[in-house]
Amino acid sequence: MTVTSRSNPTVKLIRSLRERKERDRAGLFFVEGIRLAVEAAQLGADIQTLVVASTLLKSPMALEMVEQQRQSGVNVLDVTAEVFDSISGKEGPQGIGAVVRQKWESLGAMQPGDGLCWVALDEPQDPGNIGAVLRTADAAGCAGVILLGHSADPYDPAALRASMGAVFSQRLVRADFSDLAAWARAHGAAMVGTSGSGQVEYRAAAYRFPLVLLMGSERAGLSAEQQAACDMVVRIPMVGRSDSLNLAVATGVMLYELYARRHG
Amino acid sequence: MTVTSRSNPTVKLIRSLRERKERDRAGLFFVEGIRLAVEAAQLGADIQTLVVASTLLKSPMALEMVEQQRQSGVNVLDVTAEVFDSISGKEGPQGIGAVVRQKWESLGAMQPGDGLCWVALDEPQDPGNIGAVLRTADAAGCAGVILLGHSADPYDPAALRASMGAVFSQRLVRADFSDLAAWARAHGAAMVGTSGSGQVEYRAAAYRFPLVLLMGSERAGLSAEQQAACDMVVRIPMVGRSDSLNLAVATGVMLYELYARRHG
Repeated sequence: MTVTSRSNPTVKLIRSLRERKERDRAGLFFVEGIRLAVEAAQLGADIQTLVVASTLLKSPMALEMVEQQRQSGVNVLDVTAEVFDSISGKEGPQGIGAVVRQKWESLGAMQPGDGLCWVALDEPQDPGNIGAVLRTADAAGCAGVILLGHSADPYDPAALRASMGAVFSQRLVRADFSDLAAWARAHGAAMVGTSGSGQVEYRAAAYRFPLVLLMGSERAGLSAEQQAACDMVVRIPMVGRSDSLNLAVATGVMLYELYARRHG
Repeated sequence: MTVTSRSNPTVKLIRSLRERKERDRAGLFFVEGIRLAVEAAQLGADIQTLVVASTLLKSPMALEMVEQQRQSGVNVLDVTAEVFDSISGKEGPQGIGAVVRQKWESLGAMQPGDGLCWVALDEPQDPGNIGAVLRTADAAGCAGVILLGHSADPYDPAALRASMGAVFSQRLVRADFSDLAAWARAHGAAMVGTSGSGQVEYRAAAYRFPLVLLMGSERAGLSAEQQAACDMVVRIPMVGRSDSLNLAVATGVMLYELYARRHG
């Protein structure tokens, strides 16, 4: 049976997931498009509902994935192109999307892991930055991303777009700074902050792993207290007129330095 | 005299600069807020008109800058808060903005410069990426940014926001790829591309300067032809499920590697 009404309850729920408040309440998010929906399925995300507009969806790979999911018991909602359009944020939608359960892990249940690198972002405000950091963390072989305090939402559509699917492969943790510091201490992980006022240039520093890379927020950077709690605060040199880098860029520079140290 | 009408011709012109077509036609762009307006003045940008809503503007530094600009002959348009609101893209506008003349330099009139590093972006589509690359290029001591082919607009509001003022300090050049290749050859500059299929890992490569770092577009990367025209194509390792990085992040990783080589 194909849903033809935009006021179908599930369709209304999906539209409501554009708002963070509703995503938080339901513990769900919506990804759209062949690439993200297929990756969600391949990477074992907890798909609550697949939404398919069969008049729009032409990709054999995507159609096969839908069949597999249907057979394994996932709820598939068939909708008209018009209904799909009402939930889509895109022009020229591909006719497939997935309602996925958010997956937060708890710091207490985790070990940092030998030789591993974690990224902790303190109250990042731009979802695009969170997504780009997830993407870089995945590429540079990190264990996961820890969001501290009042962070923007990694399940925001802009974050999902920027993460290019890494939201399904990286571990996501929410924590307070004090819990993170205690966790790192308890497990012998080094905590390394970055700041324009860091004592050591990042390229000249000695790193030991497991390591938590701590990045300050876009506006405020790391507080003096946070810096004091770090084992080391490193500095990325800046020779121009600006005194800071984009958060995702600075994180990328650091993560690839750490990658080289682990693999060099 | 304070402009009280939203249909004042200059006010209408400024609103029209939200559209790329109008920016291209007029050769102008609009920056808003104390920080960007003051930086435009400090860095010698060609300010055509300063727009001030004196009931909103409280910063002594900004008011002093406006007086200096007025005395040096810059046109100052005083407007009401309501009129400023009609041209502002922000909530809680600060009551100052500047209409600035775009500044494009021509490749033919430039020398690469001894020891210098340039960034060339091939048809970047995301203005936020262009802005973040400008910001990183400024911080890492690059000479300028070269935009190839059908590029997004570095004077787009999203690019201006992301550049954090670097749009006023970095040189901006528009060129075709073949012109860039000829220019690099004529001046003995090395052209280094980056690609997932590059022969050498970026960290193990030997670089010589002046150098043009060539980055492919977000979707397509570098074409085989472009790679063939490079002196070297390097690879940033990626160990996760993704086969690419965000353009601004990848550019940042490369520019800081090149920075370390020049200063290390």
